[in-house]
Amino acid sequence: METFQFQPIGKVSSILKKLGDCPKQGSEGAPSAWLRIDPACHDGLKGITPGAKIVILTWLHKADRTALLVHPRGNRENPLTGVFFTRSPGRPNPVGLHETVVVGLDGKGGVEVESLEALDGTPIIDIKLALSGRR
Amino acid sequence: METFQFQPIGKVSSILKKLGDCPKQGSEGAPSAWLRIDPACHDGLKGITPGAKIVILTWLHKADRTALLVHPRGNRENPLTGVFFTRSPGRPNPVGLHETVVVGLDGKGGVEVESLEALDGTPIIDIKLALSGRR
Repeated sequence: METFQFQPIGKVSSILKKLGDCPKQGSEGAPSAWLRIDPACHDGLKGITPGAKIVILTWLHKADRTALLVHPRGNRENPLTGVFFTRSPGRPNPVGLHETVVVGLDGKGGVEVESLEALDGTPIIDIKLALSGRR
Repeated sequence: METFQFQPIGKVSSILKKLGDCPKQGSEGAPSAWLRIDPACHDGLKGITPGAKIVILTWLHKADRTALLVHPRGNRENPLTGVFFTRSPGRPNPVGLHETVVVGLDGKGGVEVESLEALDGTPIIDIKLALSGRR
């Protein structure tokens, strides 16, 4: 298989400093966080306003990329399941998928979001309009 | 910014052979398609059954990675908008995000899905359980 390369568009700034602090989903008590977007990509934020629903794709750089089978939600009572049928961070290409709401922007490439379960320093791959939030 | 690498977990097999044939969203008349998963990743499919709702992440290898501002949906009447507030394929890291339903599996790494707006040969980055379809 061919190899592809990407550079993050920015990084997450969060009070979550350790993996053990991160909830499994944004809806499970994740704190607000800032997306710090690289200056080269600032134009890509044009139009985003507070209240907008967005999808954030992150690169979960601490995840186990060798994982193919897991006990969902880390609970051994759940039968071993293929990672592609779970939301486990461990998987060959550990892309995190987070739907959240924009709280505000600082005009310097910073985007504050309502909740994000990603660790401080997590690379951001992409941001998209959430289809459920289309104007 | 650091550079990251990934190898696709498989490729899309579809009747969509040209970009112009692809609908903008899976819900807009996209045909069914097969995901052909690499043998090294077959274990990751364990548990997926027909009817399951999944999210597919693809690498839109034909997209314009220099795009930061676009007219949404390619319509010049829509004001120029940052790509991060659209679903345009053109963006620095062109990851496609597709939610669909599993039709069937062939037991050899093939997963048929109900609708997919990606081109034949599109690399697949990841598959996840759709949160709206959690059992």
